[in-house]
Amino acid sequence: MTTLFIHVTALTMDGDFSVLRDGFVAVSGTDISYVGAGRPAGEFDRIIDCTGKVMMPGLVNAHTHLPMTLLRGYGGGHDLQHWLNDWIFPAEAGLDGRAVAAGAALGLAEMIASGITCVADMYDWTGSIATQVLASGISANLSIGSTCFCDPADFDPETFRDCALQRAVTEEWHNAGGGQIRVDASIHGEYTSSAPLWEWMADYARAHGLGMHVHVSETEAEHRACLARHGLTPIGTLDRYGVWDVRALAAHCVYTTPEDWALMARKGVACVHNPWSNLKLASGVAPIPAMLAAGVNVALGTDGVASHNSTDLFADLKLAAVLHNGVGRDPSAMTARTALEMATVNGARALGRHTGRIAPGYTADLILLDFEAPNLFPCHDIAENVAFSAHGSNVVMNMARGTVIYQNGTYLTLDVDKIRDEVRRYALPLIFG
Amino acid sequence: MTTLFIHVTALTMDGDFSVLRDGFVAVSGTDISYVGAGRPAGEFDRIIDCTGKVMMPGLVNAHTHLPMTLLRGYGGGHDLQHWLNDWIFPAEAGLDGRAVAAGAALGLAEMIASGITCVADMYDWTGSIATQVLASGISANLSIGSTCFCDPADFDPETFRDCALQRAVTEEWHNAGGGQIRVDASIHGEYTSSAPLWEWMADYARAHGLGMHVHVSETEAEHRACLARHGLTPIGTLDRYGVWDVRALAAHCVYTTPEDWALMARKGVACVHNPWSNLKLASGVAPIPAMLAAGVNVALGTDGVASHNSTDLFADLKLAAVLHNGVGRDPSAMTARTALEMATVNGARALGRHTGRIAPGYTADLILLDFEAPNLFPCHDIAENVAFSAHGSNVVMNMARGTVIYQNGTYLTLDVDKIRDEVRRYALPLIFG
Repeated sequence: MTTLFIHVTALTMDGDFSVLRDGFVAVSGTDISYVGAGRPAGEFDRIIDCTGKVMMPGLVNAHTHLPMTLLRGYGGGHDLQHWLNDWIFPAEAGLDGRAVAAGAALGLAEMIASGITCVADMYDWTGSIATQVLASGISANLSIGSTCFCDPADFDPETFRDCALQRAVTEEWHNAGGGQIRVDASIHGEYTSSAPLWEWMADYARAHGLGMHVHVSETEAEHRACLARHGLTPIGTLDRYGVWDVRALAAHCVYTTPEDWALMARKGVACVHNPWSNLKLASGVAPIPAMLAAGVNVALGTDGVASHNSTDLFADLKLAAVLHNGVGRDPSAMTARTALEMATVNGARALGRHTGRIAPGYTADLILLDFEAPNLFPCHDIAENVAFSAHGSNVVMNMARGTVIYQNGTYLTLDVDKIRDEVRRYALPLIFG
Repeated sequence: MTTLFIHVTALTMDGDFSVLRDGFVAVSGTDISYVGAGRPAGEFDRIIDCTGKVMMPGLVNAHTHLPMTLLRGYGGGHDLQHWLNDWIFPAEAGLDGRAVAAGAALGLAEMIASGITCVADMYDWTGSIATQVLASGISANLSIGSTCFCDPADFDPETFRDCALQRAVTEEWHNAGGGQIRVDASIHGEYTSSAPLWEWMADYARAHGLGMHVHVSETEAEHRACLARHGLTPIGTLDRYGVWDVRALAAHCVYTTPEDWALMARKGVACVHNPWSNLKLASGVAPIPAMLAAGVNVALGTDGVASHNSTDLFADLKLAAVLHNGVGRDPSAMTARTALEMATVNGARALGRHTGRIAPGYTADLILLDFEAPNLFPCHDIAENVAFSAHGSNVVMNMARGTVIYQNGTYLTLDVDKIRDEVRRYALPLIFG
């Protein structure tokens, strides 16, 4: 399948934020084959006119928990630990694979409509999630969020549940769909596991060429408890076991230190900033401008819907662009352009994906925004309008891996009525009775 | 004209946040005539089935500058004073009444689509704005934002430009459209005016039964300079001239003090919180939880599009609900319900409008949200979903003053294509050449 986009105005997300004006973008199979001012030679299966629209790379949601969409708005008004222990964990205890699939599908529907083409997810029931991701058409790095509370003497990787699960999930799903699914290794967090698991998981990731996905220093309590237990921060503690020796996502990093940032920059550990979730759960404001200045790759995530409570990454992008300026009282702490990089190229790098940029050879993850919509008009600066004025609802086309999966409000790969019925008739009764 | 809404699920915004389920809401003329579980007697001109939707009061945007929609995204990345002096004021110098009308109409279109039914605007060219507001169908409190830099000895209210303008605007527009337009008295800010104007404006407002609209303590520099000049805060300084002796809107209040809050609570001066604008312009984070605790009526505003850069008040509502929790690290500092009050009943009280609540006798400012949309499903708590998950794009009907002005993406009072043409062909060339 080949597609030619004509009359393209595109925020290409190259290093200079250059804008292609009235140009052409061609897609062949899953990749972008041409970007330029002149029409490329050849015939195309499909022509898409982009007049009045702005094209940009699909957004990368670098930290989420898709099935938690089932718990939207559940247990509001509590801090992270009470919210988890008294509300979320009891509700999750009732889940099964079918309910997880329904929740994942619902989450994917919301993300696709608002221009996300790539996610990094951490949750149990990988098979249920992977099946929904493959059907949806977007790309996903899936991880299981391993925990381990056992005595080190009792830890046997041959029989320990999360090690067996990691092996099984990697064997079944890593590189499924021609790389559409990647399996990352994962540690839920320092505070929910211990050294034997860290060591095993680091070795396993290295041996199998997997990335690593970890919750890091989300709350001050977590950070301080780790310092008390290990004399090091979570970043420093896990580093002693080789956890950061592979491509890695460190979600949250609200309480990280300059020493952590130096280590992250040196080893290429990406911070995934989740500004809405951190505010809503009263965790705090991550030191993102300082991390960027220290050379850390900062990506952007929505976190799960239970703590956001939506997955419109344009809202995260806008919040990331203004929050640090306001709290730090520095109008240049963050810019529209930096936030746009976080949601695209930085996220792609964090996930090890060749996407997030409109250039030949990159994966054809492309979205179109309706720039005739009242909220995107007039336009004095495309990057400013995308970062500060766009809403997910301005997305009128989502192409993931070369396939148009959403256009003008219609889903082309998902049956949303069916998903809603499955959530209503199966998943919610299962969890809540 | 009478309308009966059937199968209504409504967040009524009564004091208990009670939800009407599968009930009826009737509208007669501009007012709500019935709310209840049983079908009211009588015939109705129109029946609207609300199955799958949630009804709530239209939102009140209590501080904005409608025509600045023309400057969306213009001059990004600067602090308030540089942004105003080097970018915004020079651009505004080129405006005329026709361009202002085009900008106001564009701003109204964006607001109506996202569920706003009532605004408090501060800008010059009141006639141009009022004409557009009347045509749009929503309600507006309009004020001119008076400034005065002259020597007190030279101040003659008979001839001074902004006094003459206030008189003319009040005579022509106050209570136009049967109260659809109200004129408020106004002082742009303490830092852009002086005592003779404050005294005159306070007397004028009192004599003519007008409200008062003032920018207050938006930046620390403004606040400190006032303390240095007058030995009092802006709230305290203006109080000495009677400015707060009428219903009043104090926009921003980022640097107000406990003494200011006590005065505001005692005199009924509303704070209008503009969280996006304050973050974007690096002004800071207003002490909203403390102001609420002190008994201040806190409403919500988008500020102008030039500093937001959109007018989706659902985004402001969500930010107001989580910002203070995250920055103050207190998960109960603000709740969904408090933020919802700010955007509805508190705003109505601040503007002196009998709206913001679904009850008989209130103005029929009503919106419907599509609760079958993937981002609003499932729903464990209607208030949580509206505050944290809803976007302006979920609004599928906007009824202002008893008239449906927007339905399923279609404007019934505005011609958006014509507005866009007027902006593109007339207003932008006039400002930018």
